[in-house]
Amino acid sequence: MSAKQPILVDLKFDPDTVARILKTAFPDRGSINLADPANRDRDLTGIDYALLWKPDADLFSRAPNLKVIFSGGAGVDSFMNLPGLPDVPIVRFSDRSLTTRMSEWVVMQCLMHLRQQHQHDKDQRARIWGKLVPPEAAEITVGIMGLGVLGQDAAYKLKVMGFNVIGWSRSRKEIDGVETFDSGQLDDFLSRTDFLVGLLPLTPETTGFYNAALFSKLRQGGALGKPVFINAGRGKSQVQSDIVAAIEGGVLGGASIDVFAVEPLASDDPLWGLENVFITPHDAAVSDETALFRHVERQIARHEGGEPLQFVVDRQRGY
Amino acid sequence: MSAKQPILVDLKFDPDTVARILKTAFPDRGSINLADPANRDRDLTGIDYALLWKPDADLFSRAPNLKVIFSGGAGVDSFMNLPGLPDVPIVRFSDRSLTTRMSEWVVMQCLMHLRQQHQHDKDQRARIWGKLVPPEAAEITVGIMGLGVLGQDAAYKLKVMGFNVIGWSRSRKEIDGVETFDSGQLDDFLSRTDFLVGLLPLTPETTGFYNAALFSKLRQGGALGKPVFINAGRGKSQVQSDIVAAIEGGVLGGASIDVFAVEPLASDDPLWGLENVFITPHDAAVSDETALFRHVERQIARHEGGEPLQFVVDRQRGY
Ligand SMILES: NC(=O)c1ccc[n+]([C@@H]2O[C@H](COP(=O)([O-])OP(=O)(O)OC[C@H]3O[C@@H](n4cnc5c(N)ncnc54)[C@H](OP(=O)(O)O)[C@@H]3O)[C@@H](O)[C@H]2O)c1
Ligand SMILES: NC(=O)c1ccc[n+]([C@@H]2O[C@H](COP(=O)([O-])OP(=O)(O)OC[C@H]3O[C@@H](n4cnc5c(N)ncnc54)[C@H](OP(=O)(O)O)[C@@H]3O)[C@@H](O)[C@H]2O)c1
Repeated sequence: MSAKQPILVDLKFDPDTVARILKTAFPDRGSINLADPANRDRDLTGIDYALLWKPDADLFSRAPNLKVIFSGGAGVDSFMNLPGLPDVPIVRFSDRSLTTRMSEWVVMQCLMHLRQQHQHDKDQRARIWGKLVPPEAAEITVGIMGLGVLGQDAAYKLKVMGFNVIGWSRSRKEIDGVETFDSGQLDDFLSRTDFLVGLLPLTPETTGFYNAALFSKLRQGGALGKPVFINAGRGKSQVQSDIVAAIEGGVLGGASIDVFAVEPLASDDPLWGLENVFITPHDAAVSDETALFRHVERQIARHEGGEPLQFVVDRQRGY
Repeated sequence: MSAKQPILVDLKFDPDTVARILKTAFPDRGSINLADPANRDRDLTGIDYALLWKPDADLFSRAPNLKVIFSGGAGVDSFMNLPGLPDVPIVRFSDRSLTTRMSEWVVMQCLMHLRQQHQHDKDQRARIWGKLVPPEAAEITVGIMGLGVLGQDAAYKLKVMGFNVIGWSRSRKEIDGVETFDSGQLDDFLSRTDFLVGLLPLTPETTGFYNAALFSKLRQGGALGKPVFINAGRGKSQVQSDIVAAIEGGVLGGASIDVFAVEPLASDDPLWGLENVFITPHDAAVSDETALFRHVERQIARHEGGEPLQFVVDRQRGY
């Protein structure tokens, strides 16, 4: 067997974790971790495979002969606009653990808004015994935008918790017990939605998509009075100043936001301090490195064994 | 048909809501609402049915000829110790909406502890971008005490969310995918439990049951390091000073408490201010008055039609 090329790794994750887990990953080919200063001037011209998350801007000029690109996350937007992106298969990360964690986050945020956790929390800090009788889950319609791997799992779990669930995606889906809408039925979908859950990839079409015009089409006067915006897709899909204005102006009754146009979110950003807005630092569904490296190994084995790669992104659609 | 006796109502719920909904409830027999001052000196000796929640202490001497007693909640502890409790059937309240709401609360509390919502909340208030990578649900064992109507529904929903679920009850239950234990296997159950969820009725056996000795038997060193205590059963089942000591002493890593020995919880109670303790004011699963009155009507119709009453409490066991 001819010697295998090491895999190029440029993951802007926690560097210590990546370095530690890389030690035992890819035993048959090894890896070149760009986070390691020793690799700063390393020749990358012969490299076949790269595993990337927010890679350096010159990555594709340094490694011009890649045969497959693997994304370190479920989305591929972190390098789709970099100069020199070669025309080779791009494989995204999809994994049971990632999906489970995202649904934990989505269900928790929906329950916190349903049960007015914000008010309970305020009361607790003031030591006030303030009984609340919120609607039950069945009285709230959760509208999920994006019915891919993550959206479908969240839909199922929200249903089990008793929510009424509807969903929207480019091409209409058939999901048991969930009324679904396609791109053309956007306004109809929005007018029925109390909690809007965003699980869309970032593409040219979804950039700046969650904005004032969209928020104004959500149902007013539902069981909690005002709609709630919950986003764990990508930050650049939302117009952050429109979220702030919608909360302050009473168009939205609350929000839960995990992703931001610029991360980390600046400490003087008004989002941090808004009433009934829950902020998490892009950790709704963190990629587990061990699972990620195993997934990449599996895909390389398929590829080299003549089987088709899985989770390949459609370049045209951008996800 | 002979005239039907009105039903006696003594519910220490929100008085306005009870009065409003009583107006249209029990159309064929009417009701006597003890919250109405006009009924203060009313003769209750001929009354057959009473619907009670924390009734006045002299209730049973004023109405000595009751034939059935209905509880306004799932538990019956609010009048089991009152003088003069007659030896007649006691019917508790069980209802889909009550069960759904309780599971919303239980799942939300488990997710908030799993996902370290307390830390995210602290970070948000300090405007700190603090990524957390908590374990996933499957790494946490939730041990449910009490596998009745509420415990079984919570078990199912926690399983769907990915938690490992085990359960404990007086008589052992068979539940798909849930390892179960009976009274005799208490220590074994506790030693496997990371999140203890209390859904037990208050009886002599369960009084003061959640105490220092019990907390010390929970698993230490699980995926979150320390165990968490979550109680939505009854407040008198817990020793509150032991909860405080266990949190302060590091035996428990957190808690969620909905029920208290004395309600409302006094504003100077140390529980309000403890790190990673979520307090809710006995509103995990509020009885919906409309559903409650319908349930009572249905049971009276069964009783008078010669069918057996449902949800009858076992006087010996006390629940
Ligand atoms: N916050 C976090 O921690 C975190 C973690 C992981 C992932 N994410 C984000 O979540 C996104 C979704 O992940 P996934 O695995 O569910 O992706 P996926 O399986 O590719 O699903 C994407 C869904 O979005 C729909 N969609 C895409 N563009 C659309 C458009 N312009 N109009 C209408 N619908 C559109 C797709 O419609 P079709 O079904 O018709 O194709 C599909 O239903 C990722 O791209 C990533 O950005 C965030
Ligand atoms: N916080 C709130 O808002 C709220 C709302 C509703 C109810 N609750 C509380 O929740 C409690 C449970 O409701 P439920 O409808 O699930 O009651 P349930 O159907 O009667 O179930 C009670 C469960 O507890 C078990 N149990 C009772 N005594 C026990 C003992 N000494 N040792 C071991 N197991 C014991 C029973 O075991 P067996 O199966 O062997 O009989 C049964 O599994 C109610 O009694 C009430 O106090 C609270």
